Amino acid sequence: MATADEGHDIESAPDAYRDLLERSEKLTNLRMASMALGWDQRVMMPEGGTPARAGQLSTISGVSHDLLVDDDVGEWLEELSSADLTDEQAAVVRELRREYERSAEVPSDLVERLAAHQAEAQQVWQEAKAEDDFEHFAPALEELRDLHRERAAAIDPDANPYRVLYEDSQPYLPLETVEDIFDELREGLVPLIEAIEEDGRELPSVFRDPEYTYDEADQMALSEEVVDLLGYPEEHGRLDTAPHPFMSGNQFDARITTRFREDDPIDALTATVHEFGHASYQLGLPKAEYGNPLGQSRSSGVHESQSRFWENHVGRTKPFWELFLPRMKEHFPHLEDVTVDEAYAAVNRIYPENLIRVEADELTYHLHIILRCEIDRAFVEGDLDVSEIPEVWNEKMEEYLGVRPETDAEGCLQDTHWSSSFAAFQGYTVGSVLAAQLDAAIREDLDVDGLVREGEFEPIWEWMTDHVHRYGQRYPTEELIEVATGEPLTADYFLEYVESKYGELYDLDGY
Amino acid sequence: MATADEGHDIESAPDAYRDLLERSEKLTNLRMASMALGWDQRVMMPEGGTPARAGQLSTISGVSHDLLVDDDVGEWLEELSSADLTDEQAAVVRELRREYERSAEVPSDLVERLAAHQAEAQQVWQEAKAEDDFEHFAPALEELRDLHRERAAAIDPDANPYRVLYEDSQPYLPLETVEDIFDELREGLVPLIEAIEEDGRELPSVFRDPEYTYDEADQMALSEEVVDLLGYPEEHGRLDTAPHPFMSGNQFDARITTRFREDDPIDALTATVHEFGHASYQLGLPKAEYGNPLGQSRSSGVHESQSRFWENHVGRTKPFWELFLPRMKEHFPHLEDVTVDEAYAAVNRIYPENLIRVEADELTYHLHIILRCEIDRAFVEGDLDVSEIPEVWNEKMEEYLGVRPETDAEGCLQDTHWSSSFAAFQGYTVGSVLAAQLDAAIREDLDVDGLVREGEFEPIWEWMTDHVHRYGQRYPTEELIEVATGEPLTADYFLEYVESKYGELYDLDGY
Repeated sequence: MATADEGHDIESAPDAYRDLLERSEKLTNLRMASMALGWDQRVMMPEGGTPARAGQLSTISGVSHDLLVDDDVGEWLEELSSADLTDEQAAVVRELRREYERSAEVPSDLVERLAAHQAEAQQVWQEAKAEDDFEHFAPALEELRDLHRERAAAIDPDANPYRVLYEDSQPYLPLETVEDIFDELREGLVPLIEAIEEDGRELPSVFRDPEYTYDEADQMALSEEVVDLLGYPEEHGRLDTAPHPFMSGNQFDARITTRFREDDPIDALTATVHEFGHASYQLGLPKAEYGNPLGQSRSSGVHESQSRFWENHVGRTKPFWELFLPRMKEHFPHLEDVTVDEAYAAVNRIYPENLIRVEADELTYHLHIILRCEIDRAFVEGDLDVSEIPEVWNEKMEEYLGVRPETDAEGCLQDTHWSSSFAAFQGYTVGSVLAAQLDAAIREDLDVDGLVREGEFEPIWEWMTDHVHRYGQRYPTEELIEVATGEPLTADYFLEYVESKYGELYDLDGY
Repeated sequence: MATADEGHDIESAPDAYRDLLERSEKLTNLRMASMALGWDQRVMMPEGGTPARAGQLSTISGVSHDLLVDDDVGEWLEELSSADLTDEQAAVVRELRREYERSAEVPSDLVERLAAHQAEAQQVWQEAKAEDDFEHFAPALEELRDLHRERAAAIDPDANPYRVLYEDSQPYLPLETVEDIFDELREGLVPLIEAIEEDGRELPSVFRDPEYTYDEADQMALSEEVVDLLGYPEEHGRLDTAPHPFMSGNQFDARITTRFREDDPIDALTATVHEFGHASYQLGLPKAEYGNPLGQSRSSGVHESQSRFWENHVGRTKPFWELFLPRMKEHFPHLEDVTVDEAYAAVNRIYPENLIRVEADELTYHLHIILRCEIDRAFVEGDLDVSEIPEVWNEKMEEYLGVRPETDAEGCLQDTHWSSSFAAFQGYTVGSVLAAQLDAAIREDLDVDGLVREGEFEPIWEWMTDHVHRYGQRYPTEELIEVATGEPLTADYFLEYVESKYGELYDLDGY
């Protein structure tokens, strides 16, 4: 295995491998340049910059595509298919072959149109959300869907376009596996949420006080303190604000954003810890492998396991609040009488009335995901017209969560994801499931509660680096999960975790 | 002439023209992407991001080079050399031909090495300046010089490498013309500065008070107010801080930076107005021509004429201080007793003891430039070893300005320019000379003093857009100057301006 300081063995490989690696580095650089420009667009860019930025992203995307599907790449891959390679070299070739094969059929022109439209649609979505005007976004959304379908058809004209798009973000994790896990979750979560609702008990919401407005600058200082505490290194990241929190970057420069609610500091705090989790994965990838798949994250599901682990299995535990509550009181002295138990209950309170996915609690969250997967699938498969989305969205919200958004800004316009992809929501739930599985595994090796209570987060980050991050794309997804946790992906740990935690918190019969 | 809303006539041109234009747009997008990544590197990027960012810039630079020197481009240009083109089409072809010819001989590999080294050298320079350690920077600087020489030799192996590099930044303005103007300036400025020094009078320095420290946030608010007053549009720009102020962007998104001195608010203020001037040029370029030379600035000298015009011919005039001093007093109430005459004198005070070019006054500034041109020329031509630079720098400072830097941070490490180019300093003095010439021309048409006094800056910006900006690269430099001002570039207006202004300010005999 390569250490962080030296890359994998290249010398032993044939020339074609070195050529392929050099091409991979160029492709990575272009992808990272696009990502940095996208960060800028969402965090720093003045609004009027959109036309030029859209052109830049479109050109980079087109150039990348040309470099990827170049005949040379096909020839190198052909030559390497019979070469004697080390395991790591073979992994690099496997990943680049997959990428090549998924792109070679997509015309460069379509790639450029898609990228240009994504940049514009992102801007239109921001305007539409700000003005609660779905019709303003609808034509852009329909065009996005059509372009993605066109792309799916180019990759595999015989396959269901939704499956093709799903495989973009979840390689090597069959849709069937994920659908089975979704079934298990539904069977487990629905009665649990019902039990909580029937019980009728309300956990204390000590951080929400109608008399008190949480100042943005103070909340930012709190977010800065929490990432500092967790070990986010100033020389390799930065924390800013954006309408929709996200992480962007690579092992040298992994930036995060958060955003604030005036009435609830927990919202920003959990978003910050969540995005820190994403950054921890990126920063744990081997630096010496920057530019090839061994230095790249495995999949969106595995990525989400890291954000969810830090958000829920660290940030929502009682030991964390033993550590953090006194610090929080320094920023917000009006909280002085809040106890650790109250804080722990408040951050774990279930809000079935909440409309916003990114603000959802650990249980109802997955119903938000199921709703999106259903709508996306129907929309991509052509069974749902764009104009029907707001109504269908609101109906499903009512059906699953008993609550109906009054505006599209709080409904189907809440998420930015359509501007970048379709069929990519599964990763969020896979992430939670895997986070619980990893949590069970790390607790076999480390006293996580004790470390968190002491503010010793480094051994936890190191364990994750050692079991997940350092491998990059060394293993296919299913195999990586086995290597990291000792068993295949399973919903068991997640269900055990939520049933035990919420059974206790809400004092539920039968849990 | 194209209006701002619609581009020039493309329909009438042969297919090769359209192909060329499409390529030009890709090249522009890649250049603008690099520029945005460079802005990010200097303003936002965490330090540890350098290796990845260097790779990104290097790849984009290499890809751009390949797209520019592609055989297709040569064929399109060949075909278009005998085509019947409109004046604007011919201008586009002239500029792209020049660019093609200057790049076709430079190997892609060299371009990539240079870009990667520039990104690294930028970081090393920042460290070296912070630690006042020239030796830390010397190897990087020598390597930069060697790479630039290699590039110059590839473009024209028979020419003086310094001249080749000069033509990068000052196309269509012969080095001889500039050297003649430098001679005239030397003849005019040396006795003027001597007269001021002999006179011994000191203008009031009312903004520098050893008892008072100017808060950074207050200075930033003042800078924000001044660009707002000048008409800098929030939707097309932003103001940040950077160690070395600069402007970056295009007609959709032109960003500026400034930096603060605790003991003198005029320093940041003039830097801000200066960079606003650069942005005004960029934002005055026709939006419909983004992507081709008609939508690009003419040269660094013309660019600098815009920054100098706003900095000196607006920002350092008495009418400006009549307008601005009351606003400044709102930010800094301790200045309440300062008069307009005192403020006007203070912002025009000559500081021969100053060591820093970007803080230099209007007269001594040009001696800083001459020093740099001499050192650059000797270094590029191989007559000066890198290790000799600090000593030669300090000697020349003593010879020309009577002052010797005590540290290299205040001496040869003060400027960032080596990390991007050599032989590019002439543009600063050309800019001042042209700014004075434009100032004489605009005053034939507009009551500039009256407008400035009333805070009506829009007609001034519009005049500059109408006479300079909107043409992009429609005319070669010498011709643009004649179109804009009615006569060729001349030092006369600059000398008249400084002799009259400083003769009056210092009450000098014979001026």
